[in-house]
Amino acid sequence: MTEVGLLGGGVIGGGWAARFVLNGVDVRIFDPDPEAPRKVGEVIDNARRAFRKLTLAPLPAEGRLTFVPTPEEAAESVEFVQESAPEREDVKRGLLAAASRVAGADVVFASSTSGLLPSRLQADMRHPERMTIGHPFNPVYLLPLVEVCGGERTSPETLERAAEVYRALGMQPLRLDREIDGFVADRLLEALWREALWLVADDVATVEQIDDAIRYGAGLRWSCMGTFLIYRIGGGEAGMRQFMAQFGPALQWPWSKLTDVPELTDELLEKLVAQSDAQAAGRSIRELEQQRDDCLVSVLQALRTQRYGAGALLEEWERRLLRPVEEREPDPTQPLHLHTVRVPPEWIDYNGHLHESRYLQVFNDATDALLRFVGVDADYLAAGASYFTVETHLSHLGQAVAGDSLEVRTQVLGFDAKRLHAFHSLHRTGDDQPLATAEQMYLHVDTSAGRASPARDDVLARVAALAEAHANLSRPERAGRSIGMPARA
Amino acid sequence: MTEVGLLGGGVIGGGWAARFVLNGVDVRIFDPDPEAPRKVGEVIDNARRAFRKLTLAPLPAEGRLTFVPTPEEAAESVEFVQESAPEREDVKRGLLAAASRVAGADVVFASSTSGLLPSRLQADMRHPERMTIGHPFNPVYLLPLVEVCGGERTSPETLERAAEVYRALGMQPLRLDREIDGFVADRLLEALWREALWLVADDVATVEQIDDAIRYGAGLRWSCMGTFLIYRIGGGEAGMRQFMAQFGPALQWPWSKLTDVPELTDELLEKLVAQSDAQAAGRSIRELEQQRDDCLVSVLQALRTQRYGAGALLEEWERRLLRPVEEREPDPTQPLHLHTVRVPPEWIDYNGHLHESRYLQVFNDATDALLRFVGVDADYLAAGASYFTVETHLSHLGQAVAGDSLEVRTQVLGFDAKRLHAFHSLHRTGDDQPLATAEQMYLHVDTSAGRASPARDDVLARVAALAEAHANLSRPERAGRSIGMPARA
Repeated sequence: MTEVGLLGGGVIGGGWAARFVLNGVDVRIFDPDPEAPRKVGEVIDNARRAFRKLTLAPLPAEGRLTFVPTPEEAAESVEFVQESAPEREDVKRGLLAAASRVAGADVVFASSTSGLLPSRLQADMRHPERMTIGHPFNPVYLLPLVEVCGGERTSPETLERAAEVYRALGMQPLRLDREIDGFVADRLLEALWREALWLVADDVATVEQIDDAIRYGAGLRWSCMGTFLIYRIGGGEAGMRQFMAQFGPALQWPWSKLTDVPELTDELLEKLVAQSDAQAAGRSIRELEQQRDDCLVSVLQALRTQRYGAGALLEEWERRLLRPVEEREPDPTQPLHLHTVRVPPEWIDYNGHLHESRYLQVFNDATDALLRFVGVDADYLAAGASYFTVETHLSHLGQAVAGDSLEVRTQVLGFDAKRLHAFHSLHRTGDDQPLATAEQMYLHVDTSAGRASPARDDVLARVAALAEAHANLSRPERAGRSIGMPARA
Repeated sequence: MTEVGLLGGGVIGGGWAARFVLNGVDVRIFDPDPEAPRKVGEVIDNARRAFRKLTLAPLPAEGRLTFVPTPEEAAESVEFVQESAPEREDVKRGLLAAASRVAGADVVFASSTSGLLPSRLQADMRHPERMTIGHPFNPVYLLPLVEVCGGERTSPETLERAAEVYRALGMQPLRLDREIDGFVADRLLEALWREALWLVADDVATVEQIDDAIRYGAGLRWSCMGTFLIYRIGGGEAGMRQFMAQFGPALQWPWSKLTDVPELTDELLEKLVAQSDAQAAGRSIRELEQQRDDCLVSVLQALRTQRYGAGALLEEWERRLLRPVEEREPDPTQPLHLHTVRVPPEWIDYNGHLHESRYLQVFNDATDALLRFVGVDADYLAAGASYFTVETHLSHLGQAVAGDSLEVRTQVLGFDAKRLHAFHSLHRTGDDQPLATAEQMYLHVDTSAGRASPARDDVLARVAALAEAHANLSRPERAGRSIGMPARA
């Protein structure tokens, strides 16, 4: 896929533009709003910012974005067309019909509609068999879900080709077999939304209380598992049947504004149990519980890095657990233990391991701790002096994974007035086997003049004391090492 | 708080037991089920496992768990009682009444009911004013939400004291001002659940499709933001009013099974807009978008570490980014130019310079490009083989700043069946003076067996051709260097 056409450049169309260009696909976009280029540009800016944080993998060169003045020009010479016009059937039908008259018969058309029926949207198209729903969720550049649902005249090949396009963008096409107003996701969202509006209208709760009722509770679960699997687990050892026996009666209770519910016949119960068994795919309740908990722990920790919602709460709770620790003077006859860290999920590469560059980041943090220890503090830096790293020799001896608790041990190997030579080793906390080592040389710099300079006397005195104490330690085996091929046998 | 009583030891009661004991509180628990000790023990095992991953902070010594044979013994001499019996009003009323007769008048009672009314549950209690709802969510030991809602006779002090207990456990008490069947959270969950059951009953979708419709889409957003804030952002620059103008009409469409919805009067609209403004608390749509995106990025990365749901999908997409790109045949008599990058602002440290660890990240990206160039592509990785970096020697010779366009030049210095030895230099594009250099040794690894192994023949052939061409280049001055103090003058 090298070029696609977009009809509509609002929040959703702009999100599609971002997803396509950041995946290296050229985009031709039509939107009659004169503000559309600015608005789409802002969505792409947001997306670019998010993608820089999302992955360490190399992104392809960005696709080209071209605004065109007619829907026909957006559909000419492209391989795929995504329509994201306002939620009005007449507007969508008109755009799809116009664009379909110029596009080759093999160009697939998808509509972003949240719930209009594909059989109606495709009615006026030339070659309606190549039209499907492709319903995404905001922000389109980050949320993977896209509902794929054909109309009466849609060919199976169209559905498969649209799904392929979405998979190539890192999305999750969800194939629906039956056309229905609102499809599946928006029916679920709409049911919750309508109940929420009743709660506000009836003054039961405010929008903030309602949002909190989701994001501190069920919303955390929904980031990894849907309601059926969650309830299967909630049923305990007996699973779905037990859950329905326990909470089936509540269906008759006035626990939502509208109480017309499907009758819980044996037939429906058997269907639920069988589908739930298929979904669990042999995983026991215990395995599912642990999978759920691992996901929740990771999600809570992820939100903690953002200091947001349930993550901010986790941080507060942890702070309370940290009673003031007595600052013991470190044992000068041993390497310093000045830095510990827990590996966060965003440091992990596609192999599941801590990314190489993050090892260096951890060693840099240990260096900062070492410098603070010898008196290079904020005032020292503000006065225009600092140590800069000039050389680093990293050795990788093991692998760390997300959640590992790591500590750095630091030994001073040498110094003079302008130089400091240190050796760090990185360990799982309490484990003597190192995962990595870093030998480093730092140069003391007058940061205003931009050149090497002697360190301040009090700093040098602390460095000297440390170097003297560490002189009794054995020299690390990997210190002074150079890189080279072994001599050939 | 040093000791609490629990009435009921099922999935919810066991979850409370876990939350209390892991926070250092002693627990007396009553459950007539002879299997309760085993079941509660298993929940606590799960919780212990989760807490070990959840935080690095030192947990207090675990509280003591004692099973008692009567509800009265669970309530004697404790400071707080939490009832989590089955969802039957007669059972809960009976337990609360019995326990209330032995507990001191200042002992607060909370019920875990999902939706029974507190005014009815407190009816038979001695001192009903000290009873409130405290409705948690499964798993209780991880999800922070607890709805706090009093009945007709509940005192304000009881609500405040219950909220304090929950906050001490790291939970988020959500105070509700009006007693209503199902409270707030379960009304929302129940509305979605009822719609989901209709979809299964009517054969529109399976339980797995319905769950996927949540966890790859709206569920990811709900982990950090509720529906109202999400829709405010979705409304774009004009916020909530714009969203309601756009999607208000859909309330009249058959997008959920039951279509009785509150009339969107001016009064309701103004209430929604005012409450939404209060919730946004001055944050602009742009700020909210970035907060949402940062949370989503972190959550997706968190789920990637679990290789689950949307996180597994992110991992797949990243692997595909590593596929071979069409390359111009580079001049083999010169170092390879395979990687360029523009320095983004978030890579800059407090000195205004590119952070050391990001230099290594750029060199790693160049390594990835080198490996793709010699045929180590996604298929090769999928087949269980890869080169891992075992040593890196970095030298810092200059400084890069935000916005610099950088290129890496790469020279192969040597190889054998299992090793590859390369030298990178980092330059401002077109500038021959290097900003940094990295000498690296890579080891070819059988990733399934986790040990060194020879590379595939075709890869070795490409490596050999490159090494032969580069043999004519001069050896980089800094290759083979080791770190050490200069000899004293």
